[in-house]
Amino acid sequence: MQYPEPIARLIASYMNLPGIGQKTATRLAFHTIDMKEEMVNEFAKSLLSVKRDLSFCSICGNITEEDPCEICADKSRDVSTILVVEEPKDVMAMEKMREYRGLYHVLHGVLSPMEGTGPEDIQIPSLLARLHDERIKEVIIATNATTEGEATAMYLSRLIKPAGIKVTRLAHGLSVGSDIEYADEITLLKAVEGRREL
Amino acid sequence: MQYPEPIARLIASYMNLPGIGQKTATRLAFHTIDMKEEMVNEFAKSLLSVKRDLSFCSICGNITEEDPCEICADKSRDVSTILVVEEPKDVMAMEKMREYRGLYHVLHGVLSPMEGTGPEDIQIPSLLARLHDERIKEVIIATNATTEGEATAMYLSRLIKPAGIKVTRLAHGLSVGSDIEYADEITLLKAVEGRREL
Repeated sequence: MQYPEPIARLIASYMNLPGIGQKTATRLAFHTIDMKEEMVNEFAKSLLSVKRDLSFCSICGNITEEDPCEICADKSRDVSTILVVEEPKDVMAMEKMREYRGLYHVLHGVLSPMEGTGPEDIQIPSLLARLHDERIKEVIIATNATTEGEATAMYLSRLIKPAGIKVTRLAHGLSVGSDIEYADEITLLKAVEGRREL
Repeated sequence: MQYPEPIARLIASYMNLPGIGQKTATRLAFHTIDMKEEMVNEFAKSLLSVKRDLSFCSICGNITEEDPCEICADKSRDVSTILVVEEPKDVMAMEKMREYRGLYHVLHGVLSPMEGTGPEDIQIPSLLARLHDERIKEVIIATNATTEGEATAMYLSRLIKPAGIKVTRLAHGLSVGSDIEYADEITLLKAVEGRREL
């Protein structure tokens, strides 16, 4: 006996999500059957809505309901600084900090020779175009601390520095509240290299 | 900065699923934005479809597209045996075995004095009604091996036996392929109690 067609299709849909295998998908599907009808309708509507109502900001590439996005349109932000991140969710993470008042640029990926991702495949050309604005004084590179993230940071730094714009990278070191004992070697190395006088 | 409204709503919807917290929900929501449009449409459609196209069989309580369900409508099945399970997914699990040819009854829950679930709150009255059929010779109780599952099995057994119907319970013991070393005490106890002569 097969699962009834509607359940089988829902299981398949859940399995398209990252980190969800057959067993979890089946559990979620049966849970969905027991959910209140309004809740399931709301779920379906919100799925369709993220594809229909969201787009990317034509300036910074962030996810937005309106173009340009809230941040690019905000006159109170400091236009002299652009912080470069890999993905839209990194913008949200930075904004949660409530300290940074400059602009953003979302690359939508990182350089990866292994996967054939070159500068033209991610939002590097649009970043370079933005740098023609003479008001820009600093580019802060906040790609992730992975091999590809570091390589992308190096690449951008070499490209942007000759234009006389300051290029900085987020500090790497121990997480606040973490134990030295459990830190990996690379993080410890970065923490020692980046030590500051008290 | 808040997440744009459509993302926030999708995150909330994902968080309604069991075992999915804020972080996973956020990851899934951002993944959804990057998914192909047809895939997301299919996902939304399959969500709506499980609520719209599925119902419970009026005889056995299993999930079905048509009433009565495939199994209750199947003339080749053995009507002398009813296997009682807690949830529709247990029916699917039993059917995967391809050995059992009798009928089912889905309780949609277990007795639980702690949560105030009494016999009238689950499909026990409908089970008793089915037992008036004189062709029924055996009721196999396949509730889970939890405290509530065992209590429900005991309760049903006391109720059904006086009617002269044989009541059996699935065997409990070591899983096939498992190590004695890692089995819990209760499982070992059940395995010893249920030992068979070779």
